[in-house]
Amino acid sequence: MRTQVGIIGAGPAGLLLSHLLHLEGIESVILESRSRDYCEQRIRAGLLEQGSVDLLNATGLGERMRRESLVHDGIEICFRGQHRRIDIHELTGRQVSIYGQQEIVKDIIARRLADGGKILFEAQAREVGGFEGDKPFIRFEHNGSEQTLDCDYIAGCDGFHGISREAIPANLFKGYDRQYPFAWLGMLAAAPPTSPELIYCHHPEGFALFTMRSPTVSRLYLQVAVDEDAKNWSDDRIWSALQRRLGDHDGLKISMGKLSQIAVTPMRSFVTEPMRVGRMFLAGDSAHIVPPTGAKGMNLAIADVSVLARAFIAYYKKNRTDLFDSYSDTCMKRVWRAQHFSWWMTSMMHPTSSSDFDNERQIAELDAVTSSRAGSTFLAENYSGLPLAPWRD
Amino acid sequence: MRTQVGIIGAGPAGLLLSHLLHLEGIESVILESRSRDYCEQRIRAGLLEQGSVDLLNATGLGERMRRESLVHDGIEICFRGQHRRIDIHELTGRQVSIYGQQEIVKDIIARRLADGGKILFEAQAREVGGFEGDKPFIRFEHNGSEQTLDCDYIAGCDGFHGISREAIPANLFKGYDRQYPFAWLGMLAAAPPTSPELIYCHHPEGFALFTMRSPTVSRLYLQVAVDEDAKNWSDDRIWSALQRRLGDHDGLKISMGKLSQIAVTPMRSFVTEPMRVGRMFLAGDSAHIVPPTGAKGMNLAIADVSVLARAFIAYYKKNRTDLFDSYSDTCMKRVWRAQHFSWWMTSMMHPTSSSDFDNERQIAELDAVTSSRAGSTFLAENYSGLPLAPWRD
Repeated sequence: MRTQVGIIGAGPAGLLLSHLLHLEGIESVILESRSRDYCEQRIRAGLLEQGSVDLLNATGLGERMRRESLVHDGIEICFRGQHRRIDIHELTGRQVSIYGQQEIVKDIIARRLADGGKILFEAQAREVGGFEGDKPFIRFEHNGSEQTLDCDYIAGCDGFHGISREAIPANLFKGYDRQYPFAWLGMLAAAPPTSPELIYCHHPEGFALFTMRSPTVSRLYLQVAVDEDAKNWSDDRIWSALQRRLGDHDGLKISMGKLSQIAVTPMRSFVTEPMRVGRMFLAGDSAHIVPPTGAKGMNLAIADVSVLARAFIAYYKKNRTDLFDSYSDTCMKRVWRAQHFSWWMTSMMHPTSSSDFDNERQIAELDAVTSSRAGSTFLAENYSGLPLAPWRD
Repeated sequence: MRTQVGIIGAGPAGLLLSHLLHLEGIESVILESRSRDYCEQRIRAGLLEQGSVDLLNATGLGERMRRESLVHDGIEICFRGQHRRIDIHELTGRQVSIYGQQEIVKDIIARRLADGGKILFEAQAREVGGFEGDKPFIRFEHNGSEQTLDCDYIAGCDGFHGISREAIPANLFKGYDRQYPFAWLGMLAAAPPTSPELIYCHHPEGFALFTMRSPTVSRLYLQVAVDEDAKNWSDDRIWSALQRRLGDHDGLKISMGKLSQIAVTPMRSFVTEPMRVGRMFLAGDSAHIVPPTGAKGMNLAIADVSVLARAFIAYYKKNRTDLFDSYSDTCMKRVWRAQHFSWWMTSMMHPTSSSDFDNERQIAELDAVTSSRAGSTFLAENYSGLPLAPWRD
């Protein structure tokens, strides 16, 4: 099998890249180890920056999103009896949208297939090679047989645990890693939103986050120990912890419903640099992980592929390779900015049992940031995200 | 010996308190363990917030300061080849002033003595007591004999290592402590300023700070190991490190001169709460220590005593004790805000050998803050300080 761009992974990064390339007549094949159904049900991120929404709309992927997404003008931040709203729209002119990653995945899969795009589900990539020379290939298993996808370039969009990054010789990249001494217990609830906007809550028992996926589905998170086992959390324990933490302010009553997808998410900051080695490009989680506090993971993936699509278009249309050369540096600026913001939100919002000083410092920081127009604007600018550069001329 | 307010310590806090009380006809005695000469030569802080300058001017202490201080509209922040100016005045309408702590000490000592104030130098306080009842006293040694100062109230302005805080029973207060894994090597240079404004520099070798005390004296700092011995730093080694770190940007040439007062300062955040127990009040460094990166230590001391003076005036003029009761909470708001800012500046500006992630995150943060008007304004607001509440009606 042969194509122009071999893409590993049918998450938002790989799918969107394939779509953008198709719009400019560039051919790609996506290899995805999971089933279509798994990809379309996988609960992950759910908040889109204005720039991500604009890109999806501009490339014909926004029809259902415009109908079903929840557009938010602000967020709530709570701490020690204080309840402060950051009016993102008033402060920055921008908004954020709630629309689950799995919905975007559904929309792009449907569109790619309608456009004749090639996505091989349950196709497990086993080896990527040749990218340091001029004959990149991906060996994969599909329908019980081993096959090879030969391509001009490889896009590694296969996430943190994928094989793309692993295939890069250790002397050719540098990894930056930070792990946090706590985790999130996340869950879905078949319950209408408790509040019309997200609530980020610093509570002595631990951070809590109220968010949502639709008008009938709430998404909830509780800070837990780094080695916590989700089995220790009965529904009763979850609801009472949520009520104590989120309800500590203005007597908010948490909207309840059947819980599902209860799981522990570790908190990690990770960066690989560079994001390109020869004819292989990494994009999204395969190159960088952010703790979810800043809601930046999916938005970074979308930003990466918008830069990468532009580079492929410049090559296939104008035989330019300069955008390949600058790909990593261009992405890195946004990646590190998002890393800082995600670290900042994380380090400000999660109380620690190991330092009373840090807990009081966090409260002072939350108070200073949310009571200053400048501080709130700085947070809002970063939360709502930098504009994306055009993905084509 | 008897007075209304017994003050331990002739630093800026104790001296200013004594002066403010005198202006309202309240009597005090200051006990200072060191000689007058020592106090007047001790090099410490050197940057005054607008609110501190305004208070000194409004209370008749600003005559020489107005002539000799250097008024700054901004600061420079450097990192990885970038050179960014924060225009504090343009962003906040406020300024900061360079005027050495020892100059303020000289000015207030002269003024107190001219006004007939009582300052006992080389008077070593040995015991503070009675403050939990209604007969506070300070036992001290002076001129070889042991004496007792009886007073209505005690103001513990005797710094971090003083006896006031130590005298509070452990069950009556809570301490918050954070030590940093690096220190500053500080020095004076008989050299005109290299630059008209302060330069805060994040450099791979370590933080460096250029500041000044007068048009002919530079004050310089280098980040060093926490257990560094100043003896390891020859003049040559100091100058070459300063030149490498500060001169990394725009080829800045460091102005050189005879070095003196070369010493290592540990970096620490510390808070005692509450700042009042019965008839004893803590003010300034006896109650809280900030790392010097935010230039907040002396300004906090001045803010504390402005609150404390108001409480004493309310008591002696109107027999009100409510401002005694609220003293600690009122101060704490500013203290924690300054603690956050000092921690922020410190954690953003000091590279670490233990985490490449943190170094890159610092660079991203410096870039984000200094390239955003909102971020720069938030920094400038905190750097130039909150206005002080009136110290009398």
